[in-house]
This record gives sequence, C-alpha cells and structure tokens, in this order.
Amino acid sequence: MEFVELIKTSKVDNVTLYTHNGKQVEVSLCVSSHHLILSARKEGVEELWILHQNIDTVDRKPNGVVGGLIIVKCKDFRIIQLEINGYEKFTNVANSLEWLSTLDNMTLLYPFFYRPVYNMLEDGWSAFNTESEFSKLLVPGSNEEWRISYVNKDFSVCGSYPSAVVVPKNIDDDTLIAASKFRQGGRFPILSYKHEGSSVLLRASQPLAGPGIKRCKEDEKLVNSVLGPGKKGYIVDTRSQSLAQTAKARGGGVEPEAHYPLWKRVHKPIDRQAAYLDSLAKLVDAANDVTSSIDKWLSRVENSNWLSHVKDSLNCACLVAQCLDQEGASVLVHGSEGLDSTLLVASLAQIILNPDCRTVRGLEALVEREWLQAGHPFTLRHKKSCFSVGGSSVVPGSNKSGIVKGQQACTFLLFLDCVFQIHCQFPCSFEFNTHLLTLLFEHSYSSQFGTFLGNCEADREQLKLFKKTVSLWSHLNRPEVLPSLMNTMYEPNSRVIWPSVAPMSLILWRELFLRYSPASADGVSTRMKAANDAIMELNMKDKELRSKAAKLRRQLMELEKESIELGVLESPMSSAPTPADGNIEVNEGLVEVQSNPLF
Amino acid sequence: MEFVELIKTSKVDNVTLYTHNGKQVEVSLCVSSHHLILSARKEGVEELWILHQNIDTVDRKPNGVVGGLIIVKCKDFRIIQLEINGYEKFTNVANSLEWLSTLDNMTLLYPFFYRPVYNMLEDGWSAFNTESEFSKLLVPGSNEEWRISYVNKDFSVCGSYPSAVVVPKNIDDDTLIAASKFRQGGRFPILSYKHEGSSVLLRASQPLAGPGIKRCKEDEKLVNSVLGPGKKGYIVDTRSQSLAQTAKARGGGVEPEAHYPLWKRVHKPIDRQAAYLDSLAKLVDAANDVTSSIDKWLSRVENSNWLSHVKDSLNCACLVAQCLDQEGASVLVHGSEGLDSTLLVASLAQIILNPDCRTVRGLEALVEREWLQAGHPFTLRHKKSCFSVGGSSVVPGSNKSGIVKGQQACTFLLFLDCVFQIHCQFPCSFEFNTHLLTLLFEHSYSSQFGTFLGNCEADREQLKLFKKTVSLWSHLNRPEVLPSLMNTMYEPNSRVIWPSVAPMSLILWRELFLRYSPASADGVSTRMKAANDAIMELNMKDKELRSKAAKLRRQLMELEKESIELGVLESPMSSAPTPADGNIEVNEGLVEVQSNPLF
Repeated sequence: MEFVELIKTSKVDNVTLYTHNGKQVEVSLCVSSHHLILSARKEGVEELWILHQNIDTVDRKPNGVVGGLIIVKCKDFRIIQLEINGYEKFTNVANSLEWLSTLDNMTLLYPFFYRPVYNMLEDGWSAFNTESEFSKLLVPGSNEEWRISYVNKDFSVCGSYPSAVVVPKNIDDDTLIAASKFRQGGRFPILSYKHEGSSVLLRASQPLAGPGIKRCKEDEKLVNSVLGPGKKGYIVDTRSQSLAQTAKARGGGVEPEAHYPLWKRVHKPIDRQAAYLDSLAKLVDAANDVTSSIDKWLSRVENSNWLSHVKDSLNCACLVAQCLDQEGASVLVHGSEGLDSTLLVASLAQIILNPDCRTVRGLEALVEREWLQAGHPFTLRHKKSCFSVGGSSVVPGSNKSGIVKGQQACTFLLFLDCVFQIHCQFPCSFEFNTHLLTLLFEHSYSSQFGTFLGNCEADREQLKLFKKTVSLWSHLNRPEVLPSLMNTMYEPNSRVIWPSVAPMSLILWRELFLRYSPASADGVSTRMKAANDAIMELNMKDKELRSKAAKLRRQLMELEKESIELGVLESPMSSAPTPADGNIEVNEGLVEVQSNPLF
Repeated sequence: MEFVELIKTSKVDNVTLYTHNGKQVEVSLCVSSHHLILSARKEGVEELWILHQNIDTVDRKPNGVVGGLIIVKCKDFRIIQLEINGYEKFTNVANSLEWLSTLDNMTLLYPFFYRPVYNMLEDGWSAFNTESEFSKLLVPGSNEEWRISYVNKDFSVCGSYPSAVVVPKNIDDDTLIAASKFRQGGRFPILSYKHEGSSVLLRASQPLAGPGIKRCKEDEKLVNSVLGPGKKGYIVDTRSQSLAQTAKARGGGVEPEAHYPLWKRVHKPIDRQAAYLDSLAKLVDAANDVTSSIDKWLSRVENSNWLSHVKDSLNCACLVAQCLDQEGASVLVHGSEGLDSTLLVASLAQIILNPDCRTVRGLEALVEREWLQAGHPFTLRHKKSCFSVGGSSVVPGSNKSGIVKGQQACTFLLFLDCVFQIHCQFPCSFEFNTHLLTLLFEHSYSSQFGTFLGNCEADREQLKLFKKTVSLWSHLNRPEVLPSLMNTMYEPNSRVIWPSVAPMSLILWRELFLRYSPASADGVSTRMKAANDAIMELNMKDKELRSKAAKLRRQLMELEKESIELGVLESPMSSAPTPADGNIEVNEGLVEVQSNPLF
C-alpha cells in the first residue's frame, strides 16, 4: 500500500478551523503521509501539525454537496473542527484521516521516517539495559543473591518479557521455564526492585492454580527462595478477593497458601484496566462541556471515578512500600495478566521508596524497566483512546485495524497522574517538573520517536526500532531539551516520601486535562509555568553576573599585580585607592565567591 | 469588668494538645487577657498563640472529676483539642475562653492594648482618605463633574456611610438628604468608581418604593444627572426578579422605570449573605472530615455551594465591568441593604477594570473605600463564623454577646476568594501574592490591628481607633513586611482582565481552606510558596551580585586611573593585561550594567 492511495486530496484551501477555545481561523489544510497540517498563512500565527497517530476519532457532519464539518478528536484531548467546502474534498479528507490514523502496519508510522536534524550525544536505545540497571546488585564476586537470566532470549518462555530478567541466583533456567508454565502468559516472578536491607519487590502474573488448586513446585521454589532465613513476605493482589476467586474458575487464581507458607496474601483492589478508559472518557467529556454549571462540573469529575482510580493505585503502592520499608518484608505483586495494575503498583512503589526514580534519568529508567521492558502493551492499549469508547463515535477504521475490544486502556496515564499527585505533595523532591509527565503522556500515544511502539521487547526487536527509529530518551537527554524538564525547586531528598491519599490531597491534573478545555484560561499551569520561567531566567542572569564578577576580579588582580611590580601598590588591598570600608567589602565578596559559591 | 474576673485559672501545666494534623504534644497552657498560649517548652518548637477573638466555638467534653477535653475551633479554620486534668481547671479554662472570645466591649479587645515595637513610616489611618483617593476626579478648576459632599459629616444622613462621599457636582446636599430618605438605611447613590471615558459605577441600597411604587424626585434627579447627553445606564440588581418583587411588599423594591427612563434594569442574582456562611460551614466541615472518600469529598465541595457563590459573584461583576468598559454605560448597583453583595460586585468590578486595584496599595485602598468606609458591618458579620452556624455547636456566650441572628456572614471572604480566582487566572497581573489575601482574611476576623473593628466609620470615630489602635496598613506597608506580599511574577498590565467563570476555571482555594485540614500535605500552597521563595532568594542574590560587580567595576576604574597617572597604561582598556577577547567581553559587560540594567 502506498500513501498516495490513502490521500486522494492532499491540499484544501479556505478551510475554516474552529479551535478548542472558540477561535475561528481561515486555514489551508494539508494531509501529508504522517501529519494533518493547518496553516493560517498569517504572520505570527503558528501552523498546527497533528500526527495522524494522535487522532482518536474522526466525526463527519456532511452538509450535502456543499461539503461538511469534520470533527477531529485527538488522543491528547485536543478537539478541532474543520469546515470544508465541496463534498468530494470533504469526503476525501475525512477518509484519509480515518485511514491514516488507523494504519495497521507499524513500519508506515512516522518514527520510521523521522530523521532528527541534531546530533545525538547518547543513544537512548542502549541507555537503560538490564545489566547496567541492576549493576549494583550484580557485582561479580560480591555476595550477590541475584543473577541475570537469558532464558527468555528468544522470547519463547514469556512473550511479553524482555530477553534478560533478574532472578534469584540459586534458581536455574529450567526451574524458570517450569514456573513460567504456571503463570498466565508465562510471566513468572522476577525481580523489580531491591530496597535497602534485603527486602525485594517481585512481580508476576496470576498463578494458573485453577479451581482444583493446582500447584507448581518450581514456582514455589522460585518464590520461596527469595525470603532469607526468618523473613516473611507479602503477596499483594491488586484484585479483590471475590475477583481472585472468580479467576480460579477460569484457570487463574491465587497461590495456594499451604505451599507458600511464609507469604501472607493481601488483597488491595484497584479497578481493572477496562474501567480506566471509561473514567477518562467521562472526565474529558466533562472538561469539554461548556454548558456545565459549577455543580455539574464537580459532580461529573466525581462520577468519572478517575480520582478514585488514582487514590486506589496510590493506596496499593503505599501498602507495598510500607511492607518493604517499614516491615523489611519482601513483596510479590500481581493481578491477573500482570500487564497493568501490577506494573502501576510496582513503579509507583519505587517513586515512593527510591530517590533515584525522582530524577529525570531515573524516571526514564523506571519507564523503561517497569513499562516498556516489562511488556506493557502500549500499541494495544493506546491504539484508541477516550473518544473512541462509549459508542458515541463511529470508528470506521476500527474493524480493519484489528483492535481487540477491551484491550485499550490508559494505565500508563493513570501512573503518570499518580506521579503528578506525589509531585504536587513533594514539589522539591523531584528533579523533573511535571512538564516531563505531560510529554511522556503525549509521546506514549503518538510520537516521532520509536520508544513506545510495539507491545513488548519481542515486537521492538522484530521491528528493529533501535536501528530504524530514534529513541525518545535520546531526544529528552539533549542539553537543549533537558533544562526545560528540570524542576527549579529541586533539592535532592534521599528519604522515602509518603504521599497522602486523603481525598482532599488529590487534585485534578488541570495542566493536562484542561489545557484544551474551552474554558482554557487555566491559571494553575500558567502560574506554574510563569514561576518556572522566572526562576530559570533569574538562574541564567545569576550565572551571567557571576561570570562577569569573576572576570572583573581576574582583571583587578592582574592590574594589582602589575601595579605592585611597578611599585604603585605595596601589597594587594593594603593601600588600594578606594576607601577602606568599601575595600573590605569587596575583599569579603571575593573571598565568598571563591570559597563559598552561591550555586 | 476586669479581666481577672474572667480568668479564674490562668495557667495549667501538663495539658495534652492535639493539633489539626494529628500530633499530640504536652504543653503548658496560659490564658492571658487576649491570648490562649500553648507552649511545649521544647527547643525548636514554636509556641502557639491564639487570639481569643479568633475563637469561634469552645466545645466541652467533660470527663467527670478527671477533667475533660476542650475543642477550640477558630475563625481561621484551625481546630485544636486540649485535654486538661482536673475538673476545676477544665471548667475555668473553658469558661474563660468562652467569655473572652465573646466580649461585648470592643475597647477590651487586643488592638486597644497592642503597641508595636517598630517605628511606623506612614500612618495607615490617614493613608486612604476620600479626598486623596478621588483626587484625580476633583482637580479644582478642571471641568469636574463630581464633588465631595460632607452632608454626612455627623453620620446623621446615613449611619453606615463615611463622612465624605463623592456625588455629582450639580446635586446639592438638600437633594442628597431627600434622596437618602428614599433608600434603605439612608444609603443614597454615591460614586464608587469612574472608568475611562465618562462611564461611572454608583452604588446604593434598594429604593423604598414599596408596593404602591412610591417615587422620590430627588433620588431620580441624583441618579439621572449622572448620565451625560445621549448616554444610557444600567441598574444592576444583585437580587433575582422575584426577590426584588417580594421586597416591594416589605417597603423596598426597585426604581420605577418610568422615572429613570434612561436606565435599564438587569437582575443578576447572587445568593443573599445568609447563605454564604452555611456554604462555608459545609466546606470547612468537609475539609476536616478524615473519613471522607474521594467521591464524598467532591460531592461535599459541590454541595457546599461555595464555588457557586464565587461564580455568581464573578458573573455579576463581569456584567458590571462589561457595561462600563464595552458599552461605555454607567452602572448603579444595589441589592437590598447595599452592605454585602453590592460591595462585593462593586469591588470585584474594579479588580477587573482598574489595574491600580491589582497593586498592594491599590488593594488596600479598595478594601478601605469599598468595604470599610462603605460600611460593611465587619463586627456584626465576623462576630462568629462557620463553626457557630448549623446548630451543632453550643455557643454559651452568644446570648449575652448580643449577636443578631442572621447578621453573621462571610461576604468579605467571598470577595477575597473571587480575587484569588482572578489572581490564579492572571498570575502575572497582580503586584501582590495570594498570601496578602490570606492575611486580609485573618485580620478581618481577629487582629492586633484596629482596622477591621466596628461596623462603619461612625463606630470607628466613636471608638477613636485612629488614636488608640494601629492600622493594619501601617503594618503591611513597612519595608520589612512588604516584600513578603509581593508577587515575584508581577508584570504591570494596564488592560482590563476578563476572568473565566466556566466551572472548570474555578478552583478551590486550597491554601486557605485546607491549610489546617487533617490531610495537610497540601501541595499547591507548598509548591507556590517554594517557587515564590526560590524567586525571592534569586532576586536577592542577583541584587547582591550586581552591587558586587558595580563595586569591582569602580575599583577597577580607580586602579586604571591611577595606572594612567603613573604611566602604566596609555588609556583604559587599550592595553590591559588580560587577553584582548576577555577584555572586550568585560567592557561590554560594563556597558550593559550601566546603560541597560537587568532589572
């Protein structure tokens, strides 16, 4: 298939664009292979480039032969309306947008065509491999209890796992293979994080215990071997007890207690991933409703249940963190498939416990380890988003694009929102600002970078993403980009940070959910951005002035030296021409700059 | 009455203090004439001083002879619990707190005893008089249309008006006296604000038209004279049409249209002030409920109706501002008494229209003009607050303190919250930060300063506040205090700022309502405070460095001069000892600092 077949009309003039904030602009519309481009051809007005991959739904309101209105709803929540004159142009553009936004063949997507115009200092594709990420645990010769296993190097043991996983040293690959058969999708228990002391966080999928309560000695050996002598552990199940019971009937279930005697099971339910997108749809719908009264708005936020998901996720993560940090106990976390709530909880627990995860690089590494390499199926989950659910939008492309109903979810966005909440509560403990979270949200849905393509490492290898596309991390870690992601208030905090999950402590992520809302005079983000900008500017001026002062100081010293050589001064400062008090002040200043830099 | 009669037990040791955030501290309790003082006597732990005037309710939970628990709920929303051993001590302390927090005699209050330890540069009592505030309008000899009338100099025409009011020049005092008899409480129409062009904002109370539709030629003359030839005006009624109709039956009502032919009446209802305190009580109650789920919390915020009041107030103010600015029409605003919603709307319209009101001094002047001098009855309204309404708290002092039921309200807090909302939406357009709004809230309820004592200027004169107490403005305008009130992001903006009143644009003032909430890890305020602190610190460092650079520069020049005199250098910079390129940079730096300061 060629793009040319999908683009019957590539350019239309005199299109009326209605933006989210009620503006109406005459634009030229251009459908390229990867972008919908709208340009007003006025000076000072930016062009609007929308990646086809960002388009969630394309709604048509035809108006006979005259043409019609196309409503484009994007995965980043932007909604634009395009009034196109002429029925054929209208139909062609709408068809193109539908086709191009639901392409099946991933190699046709923009990341495979995007070539950066800058030099990369570091390749993000190789920045976070298992060996370096777990290097502290695996120092050869040390008394290490863990090893990297390559049993899954051809992805045959577990299709959604990476080629390298960290497992107890005394467990051999055969045991892993046997254990994998006892876990849904082959996701046998592996190491996620090692906390101070010896407590560790493991994650897996549910055991295939079934109604008869099957057992698997290899899985038991693997799990039980994690606990040192006299230690106990917790199995945190992200499903309710009744849901876990129901799962038994379908061949899943829980670890039979008798065979995991030192592990205590705790149910800390989080809604299944299918519910997240429904909640998001309701929330975004409310944000776009201009007719809403103040009562209705808060009701709708509440009824969307989004903040309840946030709360439940943080609650469960706090429990896991508590077990690890305060009880010194190890934790195995799983739900059913181990692809959504399991990853959510495991990654949030690390944000709480591990200060490294609160740095830019640390967050990137966390997303790599706990989402990408852990096999969160981004392509399936993000194929469509909140505008496609609920049935009000017709998605003509959805049949042919092979979406398995129920596979779409926004678990990763829920994770980002939870991090946002912790960030709000500990605004100085994060090296990154919340803009990075917004960027991760955007790029996880549509991007010029290949990072979030595919469902697992196997997909990524098969697509040769590391060769054929650029990594998002390569971009974010560039010195030109990095400063814009920095939290100017950051003060490294090595402590565990316990977020409050009281309802009044959780706030709506307005910067994200309301930025394209019709009522877009959004104070909080403007305010934070202005503050951040002001701090950055002052920091720069400060540096500039300090370097000027240093230069002046050098010049002064040179002059003094020369003056002494020529006998003008006996010794520096002792008889300088300016009055003595001023002199002392300057001297003190100099000493301060040298010995105690302000930054 | 002596304080000693009211304080039977002035000091109790070994009291257990339970703070809002669940902490439990052993303290010594001291009841002084004006404060409840709790000190932990530990190093690094601050003492807690609570003005008796700040106490809203004192609840007792006696425990037989053992003593009991006293729950003190403050007007600034703080709640503390004190466990006191010994029945007599418990009863004495509780009695004292009840009596002292409901004193009738205003001259016994703290402002009459407070003596500042600093020198005042400017007396706040004389900083904002009518003559200087309206000086631009009243330049003698100019073609002025307005004059100051002292018809109310002994407060006999209108008890709640100040001695000086601004009225049309062609209206004499006799007409004013006649018109005052046609308005509730004598509040005849006076000038509140003159916008660019000739459109003006007037405010009054409702006309005493009654069911028979009485008229008053003097009132008509006064109101109609405001409009220039060919100009029209709007009467904005803050009551609903039906409420205004009901008022007729009780002798009030609206201006009969026939006699105010160029004035168009618009009803833009805001709830009556009695409703505000109910809403506040519900909101604060929700904020203090730790058992609340996320759903319940949002429901309760919504059901409190607080944000609806905010929205309605802003809506009405926007309408007034629109008439003045976009239609160039004059506006007369009133509700019933003209003491609450009328002042709310008139002052908010000025925040929107007048950039002066967005400065520290301008906000102080606005509060003086439109609230204090305009006769908002602060003592009546703020005698009790949200914990006293709703009947759940018994207020034993309330009978003897002569509170007229229904006279309490929190209209001023509603005004401050509305300003907070506009501030959030235009974070760079305000010279002050939102901390000033919090301070105004606190001091309007209880304070060491006399500014908010009394119900009107007549009260203040009678109490001789300007002699016997210190003005809050004297304090706030001190160079030691002022910087903490400054918005570090301020960039003067002379334009009209139109706030969004869409429900998603209005946010809960968390810094205020949640600061003593049990879930007090309140991110937003921490975040804003941290940002503000960071900017302030950088600003200071910047100034410091700039002055150091200037000193270095002076010293360098002196040295160069001396060197030239001694023949070391031919001319400055031409053959300085450092390399040429470095030299040029320094030179440029110097020029920049001199001619184009960074600040």
